[in-house]
Amino acid sequence: MQKNAKIGILGGDKRQITLSRRLSENGFEVACWGLPSGDVGGAVRCADWHSAVEKSSAVILPLPAFPNGKYSVVPSSGESVTLAQLLFAMPGDAVLLGGRLDNVVKTSAKGHNIKVLDYFDSEEFQIKNAVPTAEGAVEIAMRELPITINGARALVCGYGRIGKILSQMLKNLGAKVYVSARSDRDLAYIEASGNIAVRYTDKTFVGAANIADVVFNTIPAKILDKTVIENMSRCKLIVDLASGDGGTDFEAAERKGIKSIHALALPGKVVPLTAGEILGDSILSMLLK
Amino acid sequence: MQKNAKIGILGGDKRQITLSRRLSENGFEVACWGLPSGDVGGAVRCADWHSAVEKSSAVILPLPAFPNGKYSVVPSSGESVTLAQLLFAMPGDAVLLGGRLDNVVKTSAKGHNIKVLDYFDSEEFQIKNAVPTAEGAVEIAMRELPITINGARALVCGYGRIGKILSQMLKNLGAKVYVSARSDRDLAYIEASGNIAVRYTDKTFVGAANIADVVFNTIPAKILDKTVIENMSRCKLIVDLASGDGGTDFEAAERKGIKSIHALALPGKVVPLTAGEILGDSILSMLLK
Amino acid sequence: MQKNAKIGILGGDKRQITLSRRLSENGFEVACWGLPSGDVGGAVRCADWHSAVEKSSAVILPLPAFPNGKYSVVPSSGESVTLAQLLFAMPGDAVLLGGRLDNVVKTSAKGHNIKVLDYFDSEEFQIKNAVPTAEGAVEIAMRELPITINGARALVCGYGRIGKILSQMLKNLGAKVYVSARSDRDLAYIEASGNIAVRYTDKTFVGAANIADVVFNTIPAKILDKTVIENMSRCKLIVDLASGDGGTDFEAAERKGIKSIHALALPGKVVPLTAGEILGDSILSMLLK
Amino acid sequence: MQKNAKIGILGGDKRQITLSRRLSENGFEVACWGLPSGDVGGAVRCADWHSAVEKSSAVILPLPAFPNGKYSVVPSSGESVTLAQLLFAMPGDAVLLGGRLDNVVKTSAKGHNIKVLDYFDSEEFQIKNAVPTAEGAVEIAMRELPITINGARALVCGYGRIGKILSQMLKNLGAKVYVSARSDRDLAYIEASGNIAVRYTDKTFVGAANIADVVFNTIPAKILDKTVIENMSRCKLIVDLASGDGGTDFEAAERKGIKSIHALALPGKVVPLTAGEILGDSILSMLLK
Repeated sequence: MQKNAKIGILGGDKRQITLSRRLSENGFEVACWGLPSGDVGGAVRCADWHSAVEKSSAVILPLPAFPNGKYSVVPSSGESVTLAQLLFAMPGDAVLLGGRLDNVVKTSAKGHNIKVLDYFDSEEFQIKNAVPTAEGAVEIAMRELPITINGARALVCGYGRIGKILSQMLKNLGAKVYVSARSDRDLAYIEASGNIAVRYTDKTFVGAANIADVVFNTIPAKILDKTVIENMSRCKLIVDLASGDGGTDFEAAERKGIKSIHALALPGKVVPLTAGEILGDSILSMLLK
Repeated sequence: MQKNAKIGILGGDKRQITLSRRLSENGFEVACWGLPSGDVGGAVRCADWHSAVEKSSAVILPLPAFPNGKYSVVPSSGESVTLAQLLFAMPGDAVLLGGRLDNVVKTSAKGHNIKVLDYFDSEEFQIKNAVPTAEGAVEIAMRELPITINGARALVCGYGRIGKILSQMLKNLGAKVYVSARSDRDLAYIEASGNIAVRYTDKTFVGAANIADVVFNTIPAKILDKTVIENMSRCKLIVDLASGDGGTDFEAAERKGIKSIHALALPGKVVPLTAGEILGDSILSMLLK
Repeated sequence: MQKNAKIGILGGDKRQITLSRRLSENGFEVACWGLPSGDVGGAVRCADWHSAVEKSSAVILPLPAFPNGKYSVVPSSGESVTLAQLLFAMPGDAVLLGGRLDNVVKTSAKGHNIKVLDYFDSEEFQIKNAVPTAEGAVEIAMRELPITINGARALVCGYGRIGKILSQMLKNLGAKVYVSARSDRDLAYIEASGNIAVRYTDKTFVGAANIADVVFNTIPAKILDKTVIENMSRCKLIVDLASGDGGTDFEAAERKGIKSIHALALPGKVVPLTAGEILGDSILSMLLK
Repeated sequence: MQKNAKIGILGGDKRQITLSRRLSENGFEVACWGLPSGDVGGAVRCADWHSAVEKSSAVILPLPAFPNGKYSVVPSSGESVTLAQLLFAMPGDAVLLGGRLDNVVKTSAKGHNIKVLDYFDSEEFQIKNAVPTAEGAVEIAMRELPITINGARALVCGYGRIGKILSQMLKNLGAKVYVSARSDRDLAYIEASGNIAVRYTDKTFVGAANIADVVFNTIPAKILDKTVIENMSRCKLIVDLASGDGGTDFEAAERKGIKSIHALALPGKVVPLTAGEILGDSILSMLLK
């Protein structure tokens, strides 16, 4: 894409404010619509969505692009735009970027010869977001726990993107960190990085859950089930970061008197400016590829 | 003091709950009065303050012992006790422990032959409290900033107890940390520990303030005055941890559009359990000396 | 395998001394032959290799099992044993364990119905060995450099097992660390862990090589070729950890006046006790699986 | 002192090479004599010491200035210069800088109206040198120990300049670190920084010595006496960094089969370039004050 091409940004939150500024600073002609107040830099705010879309080489939708299962962009104020209206209005050779786009979107776009790119699919995007997610989880723990992270025993379930970064962050804050994983490979890396590895299927996992002051879950599967939770003896807080329904039996936690928080989409909520920069990085690298 | 001596605990918050439990677990006969609800372990809750004080080898007051400049202990509920009443009721050879006791208290106690110990004077107590204070400051920054600590530029003013621990904590979280100090000795230690040292009197201090995303102050003197604040270009938050009136021109910050928070007595507020353990450690080491 | 089975250990160095002790402590009947002096605990030293092999459920060879391309175990003293002799003498249902076993070994063993296991193939074994390898590399850098690691600029080529752990270790020692990698995924992880990511194909790689005080290579491909080396302006040392011929143009380095060291098989050389423990862990988990 | 004043540098090692270059780069006219080969930048090498000294505003001697208790500068080659000769030849208003100057030097200089400055007295100089000293100690441990620092138990005796930095460095490398100190203040800081504090007079000190794999001493007093050493059960190495006779009963260590190394003046030996930079920093700040 040419560096002075027109980009339309439809709907979003503070992240899209930062994104508008970033793209504009990088030479694109940015037209945005349906954003909350904030400094969009050299971008132009359009009164109607049509003006933002027409002649655009790319149109960028929020993350998630279509919440609530409805195929329409709902701006922070004003009328909404349906997917059908949008695809109809977009130039034929334009690209549609969005986060968490499903097959309905992809199929509909194909019908209009519109190319679709989902930035949420980018592993780079997700790794970068693991840092604000981990910080958001630490912030919740600091706010809710009656003890310091320093000296606390923390159990982190899962050693994927978030587990890797969160467990290191907790260690750097002085916690004693147990990390659970499945593969020998992950278990070896956990030990090599100075934390304590526990295997889900071992007694060591139940043992770690038993003595942990705080438990973080990153796995979208019922890891923290009734049996594990009932066996906890010191846990004061469960922070569940797993998508969908999470991995915690929240009722069992409540019965046990353990506060549990299912925290989703933390970057946009806790650090919108950083989240906007990450979004900008990813979209820039997609546009300039 | 004998390990089975009677100890009276008068007034306080969750920290004194933990303290009651700790002293009781260590073999003392603990009688408490005026505490909020919570598990005091083997300690006995007294209906009136007299019962808690009589025959006690030591009486422990909160931190601060006498807030609001009035010489009376104000419990979480019920009638209050004046210093005069308390000294009159205490056994002649008993010890009075409290935090931030002034000369009026010391002189009055002397008149009753009561020995006075101020645990807030203990450097050990203050160093131990620097960890929860630093975590509390980080929690505030995580909550208020629209960016992650990781990658942020932070300026920490002062390299005393809190400055040492806070600057290390921020570095461990991935911030780029500037620390200001006065002595060549402190500046050399700051550099040796991997942070960037700036001297108050140098242009480097103004330069660090100019580019910092967040500023923490620990010095009870007007370090962050009008000139320094007006020169800030990226700062989103000032967290002032200095006692008394702090070291920030809060009005100048407001005019500049920078949020500033004067955060005092953080340990008791943000991590009462840890703060209670630290209080317990210090009082135990005083009682058993 | 039963926990009291007989295990024969043929040849090796200090690592096999530790291994003999470990297996013996875990209940196996250990018979060793051809080891250097050292405390083998409850293991029995055999005067001839036949006694060590007969009735053994498993026979363990060194790492590498057959150096110099010859198929014979060469003990620290005494006669050597050929692969053919060994396979002929082993009980029919026994297991042969060794490190870096090639297809000739595997095929020959199959002819005798001997099961072959190569512990060097285990990713767990290799991840665990990345820690002593990284420490060995740091030791070399500390010994050879006229400057401290603290404050030095280091370039680590490759973000595999060794690159991950070495780059973190250098950062923890206060170096400014550049890490080169190929995939967006690795580059994102490098940045998320607080180091500086450079892409091989970018000018940033050449730039990092240009200003680095020390360069570590972990990639078995000519990464540090003539062009890169001639462009180095401050480099005092190259430590090449890549197997085979390494990834450095050693002649170009010499012409440029840069000392370069091709350091292979560091764990066994620099920390034989730790290397023996890692070997013991891996073999125990293989035997008990 | 004026920035273009003449400075004479008499004798030394690679550190003085770096120093000559640094001072020259900062605008001084530098005349050096008795230095080993190396790049002195814009400095002039004099054939005789008189030429280096005459008309100099300052004369700089090595560290230590006068080794072996003799009052003469012994260059790397050529004739030596006695203190008396030097003082006689120096201009009346010149400054004599050196390291570890004793009272004889100070009194003699006073007789010639020569001002004396000892850069070794500067706390800043000593704190900066604590980093290369700690790295040198780690290098020795890495070289001598058969195990990795990662996972090892290390005891550091003393929490002064070197103890503070060394204990943090060992922790960052993954060791379990015990630090011994005397004051409640130091013990509280040790714990707050994430290591384990032990008091010399407690059983905890003997306990830590008993289980440590490696012991570092920084205290110039017999801390590691016969009793402590005989009680060690796992120690493989003692690195004694204390000046004078050190703090180790070296004979007891030998009898116990523990290797002990008395390592003095590490910065100049292991990292001459860094040591030269630190010397340059300190001397520049003295000359420009």
